[in-house]
Amino acid sequence: MLKKILLLFVLTNMVWIASAQDEYLKAESEDKEKTYLGGEAYDVTIYPQKFKAKKPKNVIFMIGDGMGVSHVFAALTANQGKLFLNNFKYTGYSKTQSASDYVTDSAAGGTALACGVKTYNGGLGVNKDTVAVKSLLEMAEDKNLSTGLVSTSAITHATPASFIAHQSSRSKYENVATDFLKTDIDVFIGGGLNHFTKRKDGRNLLEDLAEKNYRVETDMDKIATVKSGKLAGLTAEMHNPRLAERGDMLPVATETAINILSNNKKGFFLMVEGSAIDWGSHANSTIYVIEDMLDFDRSIGKALEFAAKDKETLIVVTADHETGGLTLTAGNEETGMVKGAYATKSHSAVMVPVFAYGPGAENFTGIMDNTDVHKRIKELFLKD
Amino acid sequence: MLKKILLLFVLTNMVWIASAQDEYLKAESEDKEKTYLGGEAYDVTIYPQKFKAKKPKNVIFMIGDGMGVSHVFAALTANQGKLFLNNFKYTGYSKTQSASDYVTDSAAGGTALACGVKTYNGGLGVNKDTVAVKSLLEMAEDKNLSTGLVSTSAITHATPASFIAHQSSRSKYENVATDFLKTDIDVFIGGGLNHFTKRKDGRNLLEDLAEKNYRVETDMDKIATVKSGKLAGLTAEMHNPRLAERGDMLPVATETAINILSNNKKGFFLMVEGSAIDWGSHANSTIYVIEDMLDFDRSIGKALEFAAKDKETLIVVTADHETGGLTLTAGNEETGMVKGAYATKSHSAVMVPVFAYGPGAENFTGIMDNTDVHKRIKELFLKD
Repeated sequence: MLKKILLLFVLTNMVWIASAQDEYLKAESEDKEKTYLGGEAYDVTIYPQKFKAKKPKNVIFMIGDGMGVSHVFAALTANQGKLFLNNFKYTGYSKTQSASDYVTDSAAGGTALACGVKTYNGGLGVNKDTVAVKSLLEMAEDKNLSTGLVSTSAITHATPASFIAHQSSRSKYENVATDFLKTDIDVFIGGGLNHFTKRKDGRNLLEDLAEKNYRVETDMDKIATVKSGKLAGLTAEMHNPRLAERGDMLPVATETAINILSNNKKGFFLMVEGSAIDWGSHANSTIYVIEDMLDFDRSIGKALEFAAKDKETLIVVTADHETGGLTLTAGNEETGMVKGAYATKSHSAVMVPVFAYGPGAENFTGIMDNTDVHKRIKELFLKD
Repeated sequence: MLKKILLLFVLTNMVWIASAQDEYLKAESEDKEKTYLGGEAYDVTIYPQKFKAKKPKNVIFMIGDGMGVSHVFAALTANQGKLFLNNFKYTGYSKTQSASDYVTDSAAGGTALACGVKTYNGGLGVNKDTVAVKSLLEMAEDKNLSTGLVSTSAITHATPASFIAHQSSRSKYENVATDFLKTDIDVFIGGGLNHFTKRKDGRNLLEDLAEKNYRVETDMDKIATVKSGKLAGLTAEMHNPRLAERGDMLPVATETAINILSNNKKGFFLMVEGSAIDWGSHANSTIYVIEDMLDFDRSIGKALEFAAKDKETLIVVTADHETGGLTLTAGNEETGMVKGAYATKSHSAVMVPVFAYGPGAENFTGIMDNTDVHKRIKELFLKD
């Protein structure tokens, strides 16, 4: 009996020690993920703040999915004190609550920005009674402007989808793909190929796209060479992979879309999403967050390069919601080191930043609702 | 032997069970502290945005100690969607890093706002070489403007002290009290009586204050009746107690200071600190945070009431740093319920909000350094 108890005691302790060691190793690897050690900083051009008119001819709407104030500041530290975002003189705060929840999801958050209405979590381009509401992209089409969507995620994912689809649920990806064909969108570049090709209804939407005169490409190098016409760039079966693998896909896609859309002398509307900021935040990985924040900032740089020359383009940068409850507990602006801490693995309810550059930018200050961001863009850009 | 082992086993388990129960009770009470259940909302006047000139005659600088973006949004939800802060049309972000640390303390944070220089953590009104630097309050005195300081904390505490004292360390409270006598400050209201009376050097500074024609009062009801002259209001031996006990001390002190200072036709400079937002955040108590955020907002309301009538007053609201890494995981704008979650018990490094109302307010947008907040006020208000 005594031997048995002693054996049990020893075994229990061995298990305990082993599991404690696991916890330690897990904690150590989590700690590494939460600390970005710094890297080579990229140069940031400072652009002039002089514009041609009071109202914009073109709008580039850039959405960092899950990007809160801390995400911006983490990136600012990581790139050693400079970001393209620093060119944005006018800043505000956007309230992200949805019609159904204090904490929004990306579909309701995207719909508020795209269509100017509060809807239930999961609702895509519809109001809370599931009635379709026109998006900024569709309103721009009605005025014969050129339009485009760019994302790191599947182009059928919640944020880009809110600008082009009208579905009762964000999960109806194949319906979202079909909705692309109901519009005259000029350019879209992102993942999501499978929703166009491997469908329950057996259709291959690439054929329909080709019939509607889209050049369909899956290779980013080929996509980057397109200068005019209609372009469907589907660069991944589902979402594009992490930065190490996808490289500068987002900045190049942004530049390509602008090249094509700016052929229209009447003007254009382009939405660009830095989709993976949200995923890095859900994973509570500061390394991942910074990787995608800097990628998004470089894409903002491409938009600025065009807008500064064009002088009639308004760029608005914001988020659909914050993810992770990220804060920063240590860092170094000289080395770029940043240590993050997280209060949640989910979305949070806090206000997200708004940045504006170009004609009309001065309207995007103060505390506003996410639907006000939409309304101010609409008022400046689409009202006769 | 067997009995002994069994006894040890039973005792160990009893201790373990008891401590688990403690943890559970602690967690439950912590959870209560982290959830504000809502209360009666106060009314918020919406003030006009029309001002007399491009530059302000008076400046009211309001500092929420530890107030990050989430703190503002928690208060906005708690007061059911409205805050006096909503009157501030121009908003920005302030970087809070000190000369010595990525995460600042209140002394270096206060000194950056007061004196426009980055100093080491703990440094008070001095640069990083411990050389005294003039504060906005002292520069206003040089121009024969009236000046004042108001805080919930001891008036000798880091934030108010950075505007009037020059000490190598914030902990030299009795030296800070002596520094008050070296200036011509017109009004100060806060705690800290002991630093004037119970001193190592045996002096009673209240006598010196009386000799310099200050009316010295320790009772808030009497303080509230003062309309002119010089006033030293020391309402607590150390810090003022929590809201339930101190009542509307901060809004009334703000109003009283404005009443007195506005007698000067040349103009005035007043700094008001909501000191306890920081303490609620260190305690990771959302109830405590909201209590002091709403108290601070009501004080902002008093400043707005004056500024909207006067039309020559610039109000700038910001923080010295964020505390707690607060985020919001649940809430309800109709009931005022807010659930907070925290990533740290300490200060964090993230950018804090800047709000401006009045002549020159349009200068306080974009991402700026905390020293830029100082410089922009100085440029507008104190430059000939």
